Amino acid sequence: LPIKDPEYLQRLTEAILEAAGASKDEAAIVADHLVTSNLYGVDSHGVIRIVEYLQLIEKGEMKLGSPPEVVRNFKATANLDGRSGIGQLAAKKAMEIAIEKASEYGTGTVTIFNSGHIGRLGAYPVLAAQRDMVGIFYVKGKGGDASPMGGRKALLGTSPMSYAIPVQDSPPIFSDFATTVSAEGKIRVMKSKGLPLPEGWVLDSKGKPSRDPDDFYKRGGSLALFGGHKGYALNLFLEGVAGALSGAGVLDEIPSANAAIAQAINIEFFTDLAKFKKNMKHLVDEIRSSLPAEGSSEVLLPGDIEYREMTKRKEKGIDIDDAAWQDIIDVAEKLHVMVE
Amino acid sequence: LPIKDPEYLQRLTEAILEAAGASKDEAAIVADHLVTSNLYGVDSHGVIRIVEYLQLIEKGEMKLGSPPEVVRNFKATANLDGRSGIGQLAAKKAMEIAIEKASEYGTGTVTIFNSGHIGRLGAYPVLAAQRDMVGIFYVKGKGGDASPMGGRKALLGTSPMSYAIPVQDSPPIFSDFATTVSAEGKIRVMKSKGLPLPEGWVLDSKGKPSRDPDDFYKRGGSLALFGGHKGYALNLFLEGVAGALSGAGVLDEIPSANAAIAQAINIEFFTDLAKFKKNMKHLVDEIRSSLPAEGSSEVLLPGDIEYREMTKRKEKGIDIDDAAWQDIIDVAEKLHVMVE
Repeated sequence: LPIKDPEYLQRLTEAILEAAGASKDEAAIVADHLVTSNLYGVDSHGVIRIVEYLQLIEKGEMKLGSPPEVVRNFKATANLDGRSGIGQLAAKKAMEIAIEKASEYGTGTVTIFNSGHIGRLGAYPVLAAQRDMVGIFYVKGKGGDASPMGGRKALLGTSPMSYAIPVQDSPPIFSDFATTVSAEGKIRVMKSKGLPLPEGWVLDSKGKPSRDPDDFYKRGGSLALFGGHKGYALNLFLEGVAGALSGAGVLDEIPSANAAIAQAINIEFFTDLAKFKKNMKHLVDEIRSSLPAEGSSEVLLPGDIEYREMTKRKEKGIDIDDAAWQDIIDVAEKLHVMVE
Repeated sequence: LPIKDPEYLQRLTEAILEAAGASKDEAAIVADHLVTSNLYGVDSHGVIRIVEYLQLIEKGEMKLGSPPEVVRNFKATANLDGRSGIGQLAAKKAMEIAIEKASEYGTGTVTIFNSGHIGRLGAYPVLAAQRDMVGIFYVKGKGGDASPMGGRKALLGTSPMSYAIPVQDSPPIFSDFATTVSAEGKIRVMKSKGLPLPEGWVLDSKGKPSRDPDDFYKRGGSLALFGGHKGYALNLFLEGVAGALSGAGVLDEIPSANAAIAQAINIEFFTDLAKFKKNMKHLVDEIRSSLPAEGSSEVLLPGDIEYREMTKRKEKGIDIDDAAWQDIIDVAEKLHVMVE
């Protein structure tokens, strides 16, 4: 594993993007997003994505110099056209507008349609939590991946959801998860390593559980939704509030782009902010200090693993596996970007 | 099983409540809520609850003649004090205020603290969907029931969530579920029948899966949250946005009352309403007409089972099991209410 300094990765990723035609701003935002994902340990959404982004840029499916545009704008709500541009730009802007509106109206709600790949969802609600608000960010994933409960046809997306809540004297609680049992990226990794999948991730073409990734990739199977009828209900909720509400559409009507909804809730409009954060601190403290289950070494909060990984990787650098690093070197060299 | 006419059950429940001191309005709203729950097949939240409500009224934990009061009121948000009154009153009022605010500001968000038992959650977001809005209703359940992931201490509530989304030419999609694997009421039913629980519902005092309800009721165990770290993250989200945001508090700070958040989203502020409803119709049609998994006879949408049960029970009446019926007769007789 080559271990890389985060600042070096940031510079390299920026240089690759700029060489591909991105503006300084675009390159900086995307590079920061990807390197931060690596720092949090979410390597599937880290700098390796640059390879895919360059392909999308080349095919014209992700456009540089095409910033998001507000197409509907009311007091507490807005709708944003991502204009097939960089998803991180649209997602960040949506959350920033939501925060601004929540400052004045208590809540701000912004939908996005026609956005490029939005990246690691967890990045956005935290922007609200840093401003002492509750942040919510939901995405309707492209269709054709997951089957409805009791069905076998891959109609639905892996649609993920994310939130962040501020806590006194602590970083926010945040969580970010797909409504399928496993994100598609993880299954791809298992397949590339030739490993069988854990039970329950994938269904074959008859809708039966399978441990072979190719039942999904090659033989007409689907991804399983998590949590039975509850995860199914959540997945359809995201089809509604991110897919249909943004105007993007449902199921496979958005083959490559992302649709999303960002919401900021201004705590001070509902209760005393200091009391709220103290309540959340009490929650966190009680859980963290409670006795672990037999066989478990500690009780964690959502976000804990990511915060720990961040501390470790900031100090020791970011591990990138050899194959991923070779892919990055290849795109860099193709664009005549020097790799140290 | 005695089969009862819904209108008769409505009259009887109203009469019992009025005999216990409820106003005509209070009695009508609660009776309608309970009978509708029975019609939807959700008997755990049906007329049998009257027995428990009367006990709460007697103990002074649920107050009659104590309507909810808006204590913070801004343009798009409000906070409601349930004043230990009838929960159905507070919940309905919160959703109605949210709808009113959403008419003008695109979204309306109302939190509730200090409310009596709110009943079947699914009843409230549907009020928004009937007005062509998306409805959301989340509750923070009393603490002391569920353990955090990896833990063994019953710190958290069964905190349920619910939403409804309008669909063209169809009743809304709606869903209503606890963030524990099973609602507590279902476990109580299994216990009363002396049946072992399905694997995964309950954890013993060491945090290990158990099939014995008494590991939860008598021996310091806990309820398991659904869906691994995802259900755990959702449960904590509800602690935040319903518990802390309403001012009620977290964990066991609200021993008997409910805290909640109601939100209405006015679709027309984001996209064309007709297009939205058509999109949802397309979603529903594609799913319903898709091939079922092997061993499954059809593919359903959230709410389908409830709508079918409603149709059947409106025609054939409501089955109430003998023990439950006897309990209802007992409270009626105690209050000198005639039972036909």
